Amino acid sequence: VATVWSIVVAGGSGRRFGEMKQFALLRGRPVLEHAVAASRACSAGVVLVVPAAHEDAGDHGADHVVRGGPTRADSVRRGLDAVPMEAEVIVVHDAARPLASRALFEAVIRAVRDGGADGAVPGLPLSDTIKAVDATGRVTRTLDRDALVAVQTPQAFRADVLRRAHAAGARADAAATDDAMLVEALGAAVQVVPGERRNLKITGPDDLIAAEQLLVRGED
Amino acid sequence: VATVWSIVVAGGSGRRFGEMKQFALLRGRPVLEHAVAASRACSAGVVLVVPAAHEDAGDHGADHVVRGGPTRADSVRRGLDAVPMEAEVIVVHDAARPLASRALFEAVIRAVRDGGADGAVPGLPLSDTIKAVDATGRVTRTLDRDALVAVQTPQAFRADVLRRAHAAGARADAAATDDAMLVEALGAAVQVVPGERRNLKITGPDDLIAAEQLLVRGED
Repeated sequence: VATVWSIVVAGGSGRRFGEMKQFALLRGRPVLEHAVAASRACSAGVVLVVPAAHEDAGDHGADHVVRGGPTRADSVRRGLDAVPMEAEVIVVHDAARPLASRALFEAVIRAVRDGGADGAVPGLPLSDTIKAVDATGRVTRTLDRDALVAVQTPQAFRADVLRRAHAAGARADAAATDDAMLVEALGAAVQVVPGERRNLKITGPDDLIAAEQLLVRGED
Repeated sequence: VATVWSIVVAGGSGRRFGEMKQFALLRGRPVLEHAVAASRACSAGVVLVVPAAHEDAGDHGADHVVRGGPTRADSVRRGLDAVPMEAEVIVVHDAARPLASRALFEAVIRAVRDGGADGAVPGLPLSDTIKAVDATGRVTRTLDRDALVAVQTPQAFRADVLRRAHAAGARADAAATDDAMLVEALGAAVQVVPGERRNLKITGPDDLIAAEQLLVRGED
């Protein structure tokens, strides 16, 4: 059985408004603690990456707490430095997604460990029509949404591939919105597994209300 | 002042599960009645397109009720046939979006009436990372989400352009997920105006709960 570690990313330098939502309370616990707990259930250990201002505010259930960097990729890279070299699979999870199920973690880990993929990400079919626009806001094209997915975390990777991706991407990764993007840039194989509607990202008060509702019903 | 008519599309043949959500109650009124009321506030008249099984179930506040067709585009085309020829701007709105504001209707109408666009659609920046996948679910590419928008309804069009698009598109429009796509296929100019987060599409019970919450808070 491969050794799995998780990195839970709760933001970098804290300049973006949304980062603070990860510390909001959801059923009495900070959002990020839900994310850490879910990661822990499938991992030998968890590294939590927090904004500098939160570095001394407890471990929230993680094994190691490290300070984030100026970009998301910088933050993950700092987390990677705290993951032991014996880890064979590394899962990166967004602290703002408190409702990812254990089954979802297992599915991405399995795709990497048993399925031969270098990485695996949850993806949902798109329910919206997506259009490309130019700088003036004029539509240039409507995309074929059947060939697209909206991806979530947790994302699992072969540890060596993720480390290589973050080393290779150090110059041009400011625009990377997920880790799979850096892995893809190596030409590595990233597999999509079915995502979960309930695995929403908390970015505003509406999301927090929706998450409360989902948790309440999940307990019925 | 240009004469504006609206077409509210509440489904076609009713074979898709989601179509029935438009008849669910939201604060005591069917979802589609909220959509008709919002359309009416900005229009000289409203045509409602319903599944055959609902054709005799009242007008829900619309001026004309017509039966939908096998595809979304067929349904809109049947709606178009009931719009008087004096209409200069036609707004197409999804009955499953009960929370579009009057300001949003006005924004798309204004972009067509005063802004010189052939069509105007509300669009939101994407918060998810979007990836293209092949038939096996392997990622082929991560898209640049800064150049993409997720579009909503109401969508406003010059009446002549929309009629031409639906005539031209009659053969190949089964895959059209919105009306702007057919208009774009003519090479016409479609402008994106800022969409509204609260203008969600009711596709499942979770959305209905979220919409109730948004309505409650909107009244505070």
